[in-house]
Amino acid sequence: MQATILYQAGEVRVENIPDASIKQPTDALIRVTRACICGSDLWPYKLKQADGQGQNMGHEAIGVVEAIGKDVRTIKVGDVVIMPFAYSDGSCDFCHEGLHTACVHGGFFGNAEVGGAQAEALRIPWADGTLFPLPVGEDDALMPSLLTLSDVMGTGHHAAVVARVGKGKKAAVIGDGAVGLCAVIAAKRLGAEQIILMGRHPDRIALAKQFGATDVVSERGEAAIARVRALTGGFGVHSVLECVGTEQAMATSMGIARAGGAVGRVGVPHYDVVPQAQPMFYRNVLVGGGPAPVRAYIDELLPDVLEGRIEPGRVFDRTVDLGGVPDGYRAMDAREAIKVMVQP
Amino acid sequence: MQATILYQAGEVRVENIPDASIKQPTDALIRVTRACICGSDLWPYKLKQADGQGQNMGHEAIGVVEAIGKDVRTIKVGDVVIMPFAYSDGSCDFCHEGLHTACVHGGFFGNAEVGGAQAEALRIPWADGTLFPLPVGEDDALMPSLLTLSDVMGTGHHAAVVARVGKGKKAAVIGDGAVGLCAVIAAKRLGAEQIILMGRHPDRIALAKQFGATDVVSERGEAAIARVRALTGGFGVHSVLECVGTEQAMATSMGIARAGGAVGRVGVPHYDVVPQAQPMFYRNVLVGGGPAPVRAYIDELLPDVLEGRIEPGRVFDRTVDLGGVPDGYRAMDAREAIKVMVQP
Repeated sequence: MQATILYQAGEVRVENIPDASIKQPTDALIRVTRACICGSDLWPYKLKQADGQGQNMGHEAIGVVEAIGKDVRTIKVGDVVIMPFAYSDGSCDFCHEGLHTACVHGGFFGNAEVGGAQAEALRIPWADGTLFPLPVGEDDALMPSLLTLSDVMGTGHHAAVVARVGKGKKAAVIGDGAVGLCAVIAAKRLGAEQIILMGRHPDRIALAKQFGATDVVSERGEAAIARVRALTGGFGVHSVLECVGTEQAMATSMGIARAGGAVGRVGVPHYDVVPQAQPMFYRNVLVGGGPAPVRAYIDELLPDVLEGRIEPGRVFDRTVDLGGVPDGYRAMDAREAIKVMVQP
Repeated sequence: MQATILYQAGEVRVENIPDASIKQPTDALIRVTRACICGSDLWPYKLKQADGQGQNMGHEAIGVVEAIGKDVRTIKVGDVVIMPFAYSDGSCDFCHEGLHTACVHGGFFGNAEVGGAQAEALRIPWADGTLFPLPVGEDDALMPSLLTLSDVMGTGHHAAVVARVGKGKKAAVIGDGAVGLCAVIAAKRLGAEQIILMGRHPDRIALAKQFGATDVVSERGEAAIARVRALTGGFGVHSVLECVGTEQAMATSMGIARAGGAVGRVGVPHYDVVPQAQPMFYRNVLVGGGPAPVRAYIDELLPDVLEGRIEPGRVFDRTVDLGGVPDGYRAMDAREAIKVMVQP
């Protein structure tokens, strides 16, 4: 079957690899009907050293179940399913608490063991716990928005939940990538009265405004902090949704959080410490976040997608087939595309 | 009047200074009937460089109102009042949100501008917002426990609230000082089923057990982390109540927090960054806390003190008059006393 393999920075190829197959009695096999390229895929695309090992890419998908292991109970062949970026058994303490990304038997897609989603097919561990069956056909018009429930929309929602967005609160979203744009949707959905997008790409800013952003700050560093404070009566925002993952983004988060505010970080961190531990303390600012338990969030977000109240699928501005995946990486890395959908 | 002044590490004196007096129409003047020495006072007691400037000491008190400014509306002469360690106007957005320690007109006691509480009398800014009148006489038997509502009990409670202690949760308290002991009370009060005290002083451990600690870990560093994990089925605790403020205490906090857990830090931080930002992210651990809004917490905690359900006053194991304050510092610094009450 065809699958996407990254060999080193800039070198991503679609190649023939052995067909995915059931290995454990709790596995399912899905035929991928939609996948996509994630902002987090761009980190290895920019940084991976050549080491002779290819990396299976892709961790977001919707697919059709082609086969199930003998211990699979709730998932059936033919189901159209969302595949969250992490697999989880659905039965451990963490899954019961809604933190599926800490599942004791869990892990992440996009590696040698389970394969990647930018491929024709994929083995799904713990199919009953991992997969979410959808009440629509595989080519439903809502597919782009449904696909975002496998990662970006749930991740933006996680940033908003951790940052304690609520009715009447002021929020800032750092980053205008697909996660940042979904974080704007999430902040609006949870009732924020002011949503400041921090980004600098005109096409993304335009979409963010349609999603509910009330203000835009395109400065960086101290100038950005000063602008956000000016926009919020001098105090900063209750909720910072950090959707980038750089040291600078965290420093900005600390500078714009209101006393008593919260920073929800979902950008994969490329730094080792949280800066400004003393101002953070004296101002009672809270920092949390991490890999979003998107599996847990589907229940809450799906009705809003099915009934058209939110349209996170609008973050996709390009669709490619598997052969077009390498150019999709290039386009996202060059900021020519916000997010690329893959239709194998 | 007599007041406590710190000149340099180890040199604290009780001296005559000009009488405290009303300066602003919103001020009150209190005669201090009870004060105490705080663990946080030990930091300057250990570290202050001689610079020719004395520092007014003390930020916890109960007193009797002796005079009020002309704009004071709710506080009356003769009231017996709790003086929280921070003053606050009671009317700004932050006070309304319950974060009095971020009051836009607020500040802290124990400095040149407002004086310190280890003294005969004290000027109280924003008396209506700051002071909490008590329904008891100035020598009530509950005075020690009531006095803790000015800081340590409210601070321990803050650690527990930020660390999201709740029914059936596992908690660890780092530090067996008076705040740590009050954090044990707070964790028990909020329903924790397991409360691990991390400390090594036998007298404090004994008191912690009476307050509700279920386990004690006296190791440090990696050994302490391994012990806590072993006591919690390998996963760590839901709630870490960090009551020390050192870099090591934060590293331990990160090591013992369960995935999805929270660290509530109330130890004044003597470090500049929060360590382990990547494990913290991948495990969705939340870090928050800061100066406790004890003024906000009195409403919730006072009934439990008045009705004897909690007895935080038991952290006081020595009482001195003003002349005995220097020896009180020495005794606390030498760990001969847990917490010293001052009865001017």
